[in-house]
Amino acid sequence: MKYIVFILLSVCLANAQIKKEQLDLMPWPQSINVMDGTFALSKKFKVNITGNPHSRIFIGATNFIRRLDNRTGLFLEQNFVTKVNEVPDAELQINCTTGGKIEINQDESYELVVTTNKITINAANDLGALHGLQTLLQLLQNNSTSYYFPNSKVIDAPRFTWRGLMIDAARHFQPIDVIKRNLDAMASMKMNVFHWHLADDQGWRIEVKKLPKLTDLGSNGSFYSQEQIKDVVKYASDRGIQVIPEIDIPGHASAILAAYPEIGSKVDNEKGSYVVQTNSGIYNSALDPTNPETYSILAMIFDEVCPLFPSNYFHIGGDENNGKEWAANPKIQEFMRKNKLADKHDLQTYFNMKLIPMLQKHNKKLMGWEEIMTENMSKDAIIHAWRGTNEGLKPGESLIQAAKKGYNSVLSNGFYIDLMLSIETHYLNDPLSKNAALSPQEKSRILGGEAAMWSELVTPLTIDSRIWPRTAAIAERLWSNESIKDMNSLRKRLKTISFRLEELGITHIRNKEVILRNIANNQNTSAVHDFSNICEPLKNYKRNGGGKKYRMHSPLTLFADACNSDASDAFDFKVAVTNYLENKNKENQVILTSFFRKWIMMNSDLMDLSINAPLVQPFLPLSKSLNDLSEKLLLVFDKNKTLDKDEFKVLLEQAAVRSDADVELAVLNDVKRLIESKL
Amino acid sequence: MKYIVFILLSVCLANAQIKKEQLDLMPWPQSINVMDGTFALSKKFKVNITGNPHSRIFIGATNFIRRLDNRTGLFLEQNFVTKVNEVPDAELQINCTTGGKIEINQDESYELVVTTNKITINAANDLGALHGLQTLLQLLQNNSTSYYFPNSKVIDAPRFTWRGLMIDAARHFQPIDVIKRNLDAMASMKMNVFHWHLADDQGWRIEVKKLPKLTDLGSNGSFYSQEQIKDVVKYASDRGIQVIPEIDIPGHASAILAAYPEIGSKVDNEKGSYVVQTNSGIYNSALDPTNPETYSILAMIFDEVCPLFPSNYFHIGGDENNGKEWAANPKIQEFMRKNKLADKHDLQTYFNMKLIPMLQKHNKKLMGWEEIMTENMSKDAIIHAWRGTNEGLKPGESLIQAAKKGYNSVLSNGFYIDLMLSIETHYLNDPLSKNAALSPQEKSRILGGEAAMWSELVTPLTIDSRIWPRTAAIAERLWSNESIKDMNSLRKRLKTISFRLEELGITHIRNKEVILRNIANNQNTSAVHDFSNICEPLKNYKRNGGGKKYRMHSPLTLFADACNSDASDAFDFKVAVTNYLENKNKENQVILTSFFRKWIMMNSDLMDLSINAPLVQPFLPLSKSLNDLSEKLLLVFDKNKTLDKDEFKVLLEQAAVRSDADVELAVLNDVKRLIESKL
Repeated sequence: MKYIVFILLSVCLANAQIKKEQLDLMPWPQSINVMDGTFALSKKFKVNITGNPHSRIFIGATNFIRRLDNRTGLFLEQNFVTKVNEVPDAELQINCTTGGKIEINQDESYELVVTTNKITINAANDLGALHGLQTLLQLLQNNSTSYYFPNSKVIDAPRFTWRGLMIDAARHFQPIDVIKRNLDAMASMKMNVFHWHLADDQGWRIEVKKLPKLTDLGSNGSFYSQEQIKDVVKYASDRGIQVIPEIDIPGHASAILAAYPEIGSKVDNEKGSYVVQTNSGIYNSALDPTNPETYSILAMIFDEVCPLFPSNYFHIGGDENNGKEWAANPKIQEFMRKNKLADKHDLQTYFNMKLIPMLQKHNKKLMGWEEIMTENMSKDAIIHAWRGTNEGLKPGESLIQAAKKGYNSVLSNGFYIDLMLSIETHYLNDPLSKNAALSPQEKSRILGGEAAMWSELVTPLTIDSRIWPRTAAIAERLWSNESIKDMNSLRKRLKTISFRLEELGITHIRNKEVILRNIANNQNTSAVHDFSNICEPLKNYKRNGGGKKYRMHSPLTLFADACNSDASDAFDFKVAVTNYLENKNKENQVILTSFFRKWIMMNSDLMDLSINAPLVQPFLPLSKSLNDLSEKLLLVFDKNKTLDKDEFKVLLEQAAVRSDADVELAVLNDVKRLIESKL
Repeated sequence: MKYIVFILLSVCLANAQIKKEQLDLMPWPQSINVMDGTFALSKKFKVNITGNPHSRIFIGATNFIRRLDNRTGLFLEQNFVTKVNEVPDAELQINCTTGGKIEINQDESYELVVTTNKITINAANDLGALHGLQTLLQLLQNNSTSYYFPNSKVIDAPRFTWRGLMIDAARHFQPIDVIKRNLDAMASMKMNVFHWHLADDQGWRIEVKKLPKLTDLGSNGSFYSQEQIKDVVKYASDRGIQVIPEIDIPGHASAILAAYPEIGSKVDNEKGSYVVQTNSGIYNSALDPTNPETYSILAMIFDEVCPLFPSNYFHIGGDENNGKEWAANPKIQEFMRKNKLADKHDLQTYFNMKLIPMLQKHNKKLMGWEEIMTENMSKDAIIHAWRGTNEGLKPGESLIQAAKKGYNSVLSNGFYIDLMLSIETHYLNDPLSKNAALSPQEKSRILGGEAAMWSELVTPLTIDSRIWPRTAAIAERLWSNESIKDMNSLRKRLKTISFRLEELGITHIRNKEVILRNIANNQNTSAVHDFSNICEPLKNYKRNGGGKKYRMHSPLTLFADACNSDASDAFDFKVAVTNYLENKNKENQVILTSFFRKWIMMNSDLMDLSINAPLVQPFLPLSKSLNDLSEKLLLVFDKNKTLDKDEFKVLLEQAAVRSDADVELAVLNDVKRLIESKL
């Protein structure tokens, strides 16, 4: 009987009117209105396409149906969508006027209207329609027994035309399945540029049939075949995503030079003078811009690689060439004098300008990191801004400079997700801030931005957790109106968005548990799990430090690899401290002190665990420090013991010592804040 | 201080003498002795190879080092192993006399000796050496702070030469990454045959360049390119695994006939007369053995497909052709009369015999499901025994018959892991039982067995959980001595083995959580998790029933897909019931009743959860039934209420009703057993 009442009750709760603030949409659309009423989803639900779309919409619509069915378990009847007007009376009608092109500055707008009996997506082309389908998937709501869409109207279009993710497949090779699942995730966040970093000091990752030594000697056996590249380009195109290849030259060239040392700039550039690097860092290796053979080999590379990528752009890297090999080579110095090239920048410009016609042959324009922006660089080039505070510069300065000088430009400074910085850092990093003193024309040259996933410290096991969910916030920055920047709203929506990313095969949640199980040596993971939620990996490449050096084959299955930026419980603790400091009532104190009790218990559990888990040892001291702080704080709170300034100073210092586990306590600042307020 | 004491204590616990029963080895070796002392693992640990091995040992040794490093976090110094005698003073010396061939009846033996300062693996060839490395990885032990191998000597070799896994890529396509991770897992269990089911009614999955219609019209876009096939074959060979392709003919032919209806047996075999099937089940579609064009097309297929697979065998399926299309076609009937073919079996033999020279051309012998074993079948063929009780036959009868008739044979009856039967069923299924009345020569013809992963009800998300860990038990059956069959030992070792499989990328644990998170709609999963550990998916294809029909695109993200055979808590409950019935003391009663309390709480949690999780609804009635039984049983145990036979009968019947969630309560038999004992 109780059961029946319960069932009746839950059915009655059905389909309460939703407010738009309750929707977990990301990126947030330009305009949304939610109306009374709902569209009820049933197994009869079908999709129909009209208009003249590119065939990618059929794949997109089929994938949409499968995701909806896998999420709801409704056994939807429709199997594949294969052509226009297949089901004229379908409840979801998608109209695409024309076929979309995978280029920048396309019309990606769409209009989505949900009414009680019908859903309509209107778009100029299939690219907009695909975005509409992603929004519709995010609109799905449920009560206790069924699924529905709220009646609503969305009018949407991106703010920036370039919404990219770069994946570095050189430092750690990333297999095709890693790339594909991330393309799916990108599409779900309405991102449209995948920048594929294919060559660096640590590996040459793309088959060149006429130059087999590149992969034989430069890849340690890990590279993409041309067939795989084509497969990924098609997969991306089916999802409305452009693929931009990057071959980083003339610096970052150890791998190419391991295969062809004769085009290197070393005086002694014989066989064996270059090796594929297995450490991170910047190397001296550079192509010899004065050697005609350099351009012969590059031409052979471009002739094979360019046709694989339909994009109009080709990224030639061009960053961080320190010029040391050039300076040390008398022949190169002589060449510079003869050709009146004043310095390494002039020589690099000389080199870059030689590439332009080689790429033009394949209808490609050059894109490069900001160092390519020298005086004579063609205005056709796209400047990729990356430097900032870490390099002693104003953040993203070159982005603005490039726009002023007449270049299209793309921002990655502030979007380096490998730095393990907070989601807030990235979310509030606007490529075009209100204060930018730029003309409308100059503004239009700022194409957008790109999250940059450098892979020194990620493997296929962990890469998703570094990209997601933070890249969803970057996607919103690049798509949504600049006024959309409320962190609380972002955090709230991200809980659902992050969970839904696993629907697409993203592994950031599931693989964290895999790492923790190994750390716990197959014992109960709850204590390591709890600790991982208040620790963050060392930021800004500090993991290489404290006597530790990660090489390309070092284990990335450690506690720091299970932790992430924006430690979830640390955020909750921050809120608890803030609330307590604002109102020192009993309730707030209970919430606050429950953290200390939890951490004391956790420390004890970790110690127990460590008896049979060596991988727990490295972070025990950190947990112990937090335990000691917690015990003392409990004495202060529970026993009204006076807070001893000096004692806490020592404890805080101890907790701030660099941990062998390469993580830091994400709660430490708030513990400090609390202690200082008690002093 | 407490902390220091704790650290000292844990260090003192170091390296206690291990007994061999404590080792979690699988498959259990033919001989193992554990001695005093240990080999301590440090970052200096290196591997050296001597002898004349095939180059696969370098890949195997490199992978070994990476796995060891990822597991221990030791930052091992060795990067790649690339040639013999690279590190002559390495602590691990592997000596392979010759290069191994990927064929049956190879010498796969190895000897592994661990002493305090040195580890040696001696093997006739790299195949045995690879097995030795897998054993060594399983030997790894740890104390609280470090890792070590116990001093020991293992002498090992397989009992059967054919230790296979079949994956059906036709019903649900399985991408390359799924295949590769399963090859890794197979290698870790010393399995050596991957049987790849590439064509069936639901899809043609392999590119044939001269016959593009096969994939254009027969695959719904999901198939392997020839390059991918080659890549997998190489990947398998690197792991000592032979790949046997299967093209299932003349039945199971809907996909091939969707592309080439003109070679079908229907009277009206025009375009559109066959379609790629999207349901499971047996279809009438069959190639026309009387049509010369059938053989022309098959020859073109074999000419392209055979060279991709170095194996000496080619599996032509040959099963379940019901003969209906043949019977209904007058032309075929006329042909049979003319050629004195008495029945469909004769006609199929006629067909099969035509295939033999076509395969011989490529140095391949024929392998087929047991139906191919007709009177005139060549004795070169391998008979694949699959039928049993489900088909009204004595289990694996044809295996013995085949051996007696002079055929080599392989057993899959009893190894159908898609049936969701218990691990015990498969583990105790010996291809060559002690009682088999066979001569030594006949015995030698029983090559071994194969786990069969038919994929009607699995997707890349769930397939690993159906294959593993049960296939590890099958691997042990096929490798180890027939006397190794203690279920308690198997269960104990499997806890570690199952956990370690995720180290190889197997997703059976992590993906379960993904499914449960979706079911719980991103709420706390602990109640669904608990319930999943006492439920098992309906067995023997019963999921298709109760008004439900799974099509190839139906959602397999449901509760039944998160559940598995051998529900873990159900086993614990069985033990608790057994213990209680043996000794009705207070302690046993407390353990027993704690299950009932847990299930009552769980039911309440599930009801709460279901308010915002429609996918919980289908299994609420089942949980409710268990709740009601638990409540009544608590009254009996705690309140000494008399057990009411009729009341319990009703409750038990209720709990046995087919659940909409396609699962059954795995604890029900033991609840019954308990109730009956109280009557």
